[in-house]
Amino acid sequence: MLIDCGEGTQMQMRLYKIKRSRINHIFISHLHGDHYFGLIGLLNSFALNNRQDELHIYAPEKLQYIIQLQMDAAGANLPYQLYFHHLEKEEIIFEDKKLSVECFKVKHRIECWGFIFREKKNPRKINVSAVKKYKVPKSFFENLHLGEDYVNSKNVMIKNEILTIASEPPKSYAYCADTAYFEAICEKIKGVDMVYHESTYLADQEKKAAERFHSTSKQAATVAKNAGAKKLLMGHFSSIYDSLEKFTEEAREIFANSEIAEEGVCYFS
Amino acid sequence: MLIDCGEGTQMQMRLYKIKRSRINHIFISHLHGDHYFGLIGLLNSFALNNRQDELHIYAPEKLQYIIQLQMDAAGANLPYQLYFHHLEKEEIIFEDKKLSVECFKVKHRIECWGFIFREKKNPRKINVSAVKKYKVPKSFFENLHLGEDYVNSKNVMIKNEILTIASEPPKSYAYCADTAYFEAICEKIKGVDMVYHESTYLADQEKKAAERFHSTSKQAATVAKNAGAKKLLMGHFSSIYDSLEKFTEEAREIFANSEIAEEGVCYFS
Repeated sequence: MLIDCGEGTQMQMRLYKIKRSRINHIFISHLHGDHYFGLIGLLNSFALNNRQDELHIYAPEKLQYIIQLQMDAAGANLPYQLYFHHLEKEEIIFEDKKLSVECFKVKHRIECWGFIFREKKNPRKINVSAVKKYKVPKSFFENLHLGEDYVNSKNVMIKNEILTIASEPPKSYAYCADTAYFEAICEKIKGVDMVYHESTYLADQEKKAAERFHSTSKQAATVAKNAGAKKLLMGHFSSIYDSLEKFTEEAREIFANSEIAEEGVCYFS
Repeated sequence: MLIDCGEGTQMQMRLYKIKRSRINHIFISHLHGDHYFGLIGLLNSFALNNRQDELHIYAPEKLQYIIQLQMDAAGANLPYQLYFHHLEKEEIIFEDKKLSVECFKVKHRIECWGFIFREKKNPRKINVSAVKKYKVPKSFFENLHLGEDYVNSKNVMIKNEILTIASEPPKSYAYCADTAYFEAICEKIKGVDMVYHESTYLADQEKKAAERFHSTSKQAATVAKNAGAKKLLMGHFSSIYDSLEKFTEEAREIFANSEIAEEGVCYFS
């Protein structure tokens, strides 16, 4: 899954050894260039590499016309199926066994969407030594995964929690795209583990931030705090700042677990 | 002036310290992504930097619709005037005191154009010691530039070539874009100093090259030779080749002054 795709994204993926062919779902928050100008190049590279797997794009409707016009101009036929999913209302836009993705509206100069990624509850794992000890047949393992207790041939019940181990709790991540600060966003992303919230400016530029539909460090931290998140990642810093230290400094006054999103780094909540 | 603009062009210009704001004319040969996907990002960056100077784009007509659709989607108004010049027939598309640019058709899968850049003949330079010696007044210098002889108050004529020095001969450069090999191209670019001709494949892939509307090393060299050029620059190499040495080797069998176009290097004829 890839969220937004600015110019040169495919080059950076090569640099960080991210296998582009593994991307099957691309989420585009809005149609400002820094969030999608790299998409057409990526789609093109997929074609050059003779990709066969389906590709899904979740984006504002106009993106489809832009991409189609560019494909037409090149006289190109993609070797893979490309599906466009237009973002229209706040809803679950993707779901499989492991994960769901929902979109929510944020406040920007043009139509703009955030995305929440929620892992599903993982099934409990088999406790190998316990199932040996209590002689649970393999045929019952599926039931154990589902949380059932085991009753043996002597009619003795062995509780599921003895025979299984809890999995990692499922994680959730909210990507808030480009947005002005607004209180209602906290409700939308309530309780997620990690929040990415833009922080284009430092706190002293609150007025300018609002005018330009962007946010400050302290506003980002306020959102993370009021949403009850475990961690805040900040990004989308204005190029007027040479150093970013002050962003974490200011954010941490409000929300301790605040960090700068750095290129090429993996973050977990 | 910028010829073609693939994805990431603006990043590479930054890397090579090329001042982007000095670009006033952009020539796009055709609408395959590797030749224009970086243009919209560059136009956007010009806007972010509050460019005021006019910008001229010379390209197939469809590019205008693509760019306009992307501008509309972003709700953007450019702070500078953007002029589109549609390439329609082989003609001079730009001209000023120093230079003219003409476009010519090449053979590719889709509409594709080459460009010839011709410096104009530079005016002769004043020979400072000679004008002193013959007491030529400054008011006559403009006439000297234009090639006139000087007649002094005693009615003695001093020939222009005594009073002036020849300038560098004007240079010309033909950019042949992406093209299959075709003989008529030599006539179109006859006598230019330097030719850029694509060389996607080595000579043993002539059939594949033709099928894909590309050329080989030897075909590029044949064009340079038959056009009477002074130098050949080859580029657009297929990613199947790890090393490019064989390209110059093969080309030089036909045309000695053949070179690989390397990123970040300046070439003169």
